[in-house]
Amino acid sequence: MKELLQKARAASRQLAALNTAQKNAALLEIARQLQEPENVRLILAENKKDTDAAEQSGITAALLDRLTLTEARLAAIADSVREVAELPDPVGQGETFTRPNGLKIINTRVPMGVVAVIYEARPNVTVDTAALCLKSGNSAVLRGSSSAINSNRAITAIMRKALAAVGLPQDAVCFIDDISRETTRELMTARGLIDLLLPRGGRGLINFVCENSTVPVIQTGAGVCHVYVDKSADIEMAADLVFNAKCSRPSVCNAAETLLVHRDIAAQALPVIAARLLEKNTELRGCPETLGILPRAVPATEEDWSTEYGDYILSVRVVGSLDEAVSHIARYSTGHSEAIVTRDYASASEFTERVDSACVYVNASTRFTDGGEFGFGSEIGISTQKLHVRGPVGLRHLVTNKYIVLGSGQVR
Amino acid sequence: MKELLQKARAASRQLAALNTAQKNAALLEIARQLQEPENVRLILAENKKDTDAAEQSGITAALLDRLTLTEARLAAIADSVREVAELPDPVGQGETFTRPNGLKIINTRVPMGVVAVIYEARPNVTVDTAALCLKSGNSAVLRGSSSAINSNRAITAIMRKALAAVGLPQDAVCFIDDISRETTRELMTARGLIDLLLPRGGRGLINFVCENSTVPVIQTGAGVCHVYVDKSADIEMAADLVFNAKCSRPSVCNAAETLLVHRDIAAQALPVIAARLLEKNTELRGCPETLGILPRAVPATEEDWSTEYGDYILSVRVVGSLDEAVSHIARYSTGHSEAIVTRDYASASEFTERVDSACVYVNASTRFTDGGEFGFGSEIGISTQKLHVRGPVGLRHLVTNKYIVLGSGQVR
Repeated sequence: MKELLQKARAASRQLAALNTAQKNAALLEIARQLQEPENVRLILAENKKDTDAAEQSGITAALLDRLTLTEARLAAIADSVREVAELPDPVGQGETFTRPNGLKIINTRVPMGVVAVIYEARPNVTVDTAALCLKSGNSAVLRGSSSAINSNRAITAIMRKALAAVGLPQDAVCFIDDISRETTRELMTARGLIDLLLPRGGRGLINFVCENSTVPVIQTGAGVCHVYVDKSADIEMAADLVFNAKCSRPSVCNAAETLLVHRDIAAQALPVIAARLLEKNTELRGCPETLGILPRAVPATEEDWSTEYGDYILSVRVVGSLDEAVSHIARYSTGHSEAIVTRDYASASEFTERVDSACVYVNASTRFTDGGEFGFGSEIGISTQKLHVRGPVGLRHLVTNKYIVLGSGQVR
Repeated sequence: MKELLQKARAASRQLAALNTAQKNAALLEIARQLQEPENVRLILAENKKDTDAAEQSGITAALLDRLTLTEARLAAIADSVREVAELPDPVGQGETFTRPNGLKIINTRVPMGVVAVIYEARPNVTVDTAALCLKSGNSAVLRGSSSAINSNRAITAIMRKALAAVGLPQDAVCFIDDISRETTRELMTARGLIDLLLPRGGRGLINFVCENSTVPVIQTGAGVCHVYVDKSADIEMAADLVFNAKCSRPSVCNAAETLLVHRDIAAQALPVIAARLLEKNTELRGCPETLGILPRAVPATEEDWSTEYGDYILSVRVVGSLDEAVSHIARYSTGHSEAIVTRDYASASEFTERVDSACVYVNASTRFTDGGEFGFGSEIGISTQKLHVRGPVGLRHLVTNKYIVLGSGQVR
C-alpha cells in the first residue's frame, strides 16, 4: 500500500505541472478508449462476472441495476468525462495582495496531491472520480467495492493505458485490487501520503471512514432533509415541492424524509399534500396530531425522525411555530438540505438564518442540492461537514491554496 | 463532556445570530475586564500558583517565562482582544449566482459552530482563541495544559463574566477543567458536537490529536523550513535572509532548519553565510561537501534533515541543481515554508511552481509566514494540511459556507 501511495504521490507532482490543455487531452483520450469496441467488449465481459456473482448472492434488483454496465451506459460515462474536460480548470487561479514592506503575496489554487476515494457498488464512480481528480491535477487512489471489482479493474486498466498514450504517468490513477479490511485500514491511516480521503456511499461506510481515518476526510452524503410548510404557505406550491422532494427520486441523499407543517395550516394543507403523495403510494408516518388529520398515516416512532428512508416513506409532524420547526431540524437533521414553503418575508429570513445546513431553500425543492444543478459540473459528493466546504463538492473544491511570496530581500 | 459540548452548541446558535457590533461589544468588555484591577490581582495570584508549581517541577527558564503573566502582559493580551474587535467580521460575506431555472443561490460565510482547541502552556492562547472564535461567531471549547490550569481557569471565568455582562451566553467560552487523558479522548471523538478541533503546540501534541481524533482537525505547526541559495543568488542577500530565517527567533515554526546551497556558489557563499550565523554562535551540521568548505561545521546525520531544532542549529547541504534542492525539500519538508534566493527568473518560477509547501518565498525570509505579517490579524496556527486552508489560519478561516437558495416554486 505504501508503495502504491508513493507512486501516486510521485505522479501527482507531474500532474501539478500540467497545463489545462494537457489535462484535457488525457481526459478525451480516456473517453475515447472507454468507447473503443475492443475495450467495450472487455469491460462488459468483466462486468458480467460481477453481475453474475451478484445475482447468485441474491442482491436486490435495484442494486443489480446500479452495478450493470451496457454499451449505452459506457457511452454516458465517456460523455461525463468529456464534460469534465469542458469545465474550467480550478488550478492556477488566485488573488494577489501587497504588504506594506513590499512583499507581493499570491494566494494561488493548487492541486491537493493524492485524493483517495472509498466507494460502493457503481462502476461509473471509478471513472467520474478519476476524471475529476485528473482535471484538478490530483492523483486518484480508487478503492471500490468487492462486488464491482472485475468491472473496476478493467476500467482502471483502460484509463491507465489512456494516460500512458498521452505521455502522462499511469500512477495518476491507482486501483486498490486487494479489498481487504487490512488494506482499507492502511489507506485510512496513511498520514502524509494521502491529502484527502472521500467516502462515497451509505451512512455505514461514511461513519466507518470518519471514525477510523487519521488522514483528512470530507464527510459526505447522509441526508435527513426536511420540508417545512409555514402557516403562510401557498398550499398548491407546498404540495408540488413536497411531492418533488420526496418522490422524484427517493433513493438519493437530497430527497426529503420529514415534512413539518405549521399547526395553523395543517388541517388544510396536509390532505392536499397527502393526496399528491398518494400518487406514488407514499407511506406517511405521523405525529399524533398528523394522525388526527390524516387517518391513512401510521404512527411515527422517535427513530423515524432521524431515519433516511431512501424510499416512498415520509415522516410528518405538526409544529406550533417556525421556532419549533427550526428546533426539530437542529435536533434531527444531518445538515444536508432543508426547505421552507412560505409567503412571509420574515419567516423566510428567519428560517434561512437559523437553519444550519449546507443548503437552505425558500420555495424550492431540496432535490436541487447537486453539483450539476448548482452549475459546478459533476460532483464527488455532498459535504455535510464544515471544514473545507459544505454542499456539493465539485471540481473547484478539489484544490488547496499555496502562498507564493515574491520579495526583494525582505527580512523580519 | 457531552453536556459541556451541548451547552457550547446551544451558545453557538445564539452567537451565529449576532451582528458585528454585538460581537465587538463583547470583545471590548472582555478586554476591559481583563484589566480591571481586581481581576488583574486575581489572575496574577492564580498564575503564581502555576509558576510556583512549575518552578518546583524544575521547568526550563524559557518555559517558565512563557507561563508567567504580569500586569504588562495582561495589558498586551487585552490589547490583542481589542485588535480582534477591529478586524473585519468574516461572517455574512458571500457570492450570489442565478441558475437558468431562476434559482438564486447565495453562498454565504457562516460560523463553524463549536471550535475546540487543545493547547500547551501559554495562558495568552486562552484569550486569543476565545477572541477569534467569538468574533467569527463560534463557541470556543478550551483545553489547556495542566501547567497553566489555575491561570486558564481564572481567565476563562473572567471572560465568561464579561459575556454575561453584555447579555451573551457564557457557554460561548467553555473551559475543560478536568485535564485527564479520558476527557481529552472524549473531546477528540465528539463527532457531531465539535465542528473543528485545533491542536496548538509542539509536534507531539499535533500528532497525538491528528492520530486520535474522529472530528475534523486542522493540522498545524511543525515546520522544517528550508532556504535554498541558487547559483545565481546575491550572496549578501542570501546571508541576510539565512541569518534572519534562522536567528531572528529560532524557537518558532517559521524559522529555517536547513540551508541548501547550489554547488556552483557554495565555496563562495557558505563562508559569508557562516560568518553571519557565527554572530549568534549557530551550530552548523553539514553534508560532507559542506564540511570541506566550512571546517567549523559538524557532520549531519540522516535524522538532521527532518529535525525542527527550535534552536541556533542549522543543517547545511550542497546540492548539484535546483532539481536536487526541490527533491530534498519534497522528501524532508513538513510543507510549511521554503525560500529560494536567486537572481534568475526561471529558477524563481520553477521553485515556486514545484515546491509544494504552504508558503514559498523568492528572496524573502521564511519568517514572514504569520497571520499578522500576511495582514490577516492574529492567527490560530499555521496549517500544513491541504484540507480547508494552508498557511496562516486567521479569523477569516474560522468560518464555513452555507448555500441559501431562493426560489419561486422550482421543482426538479
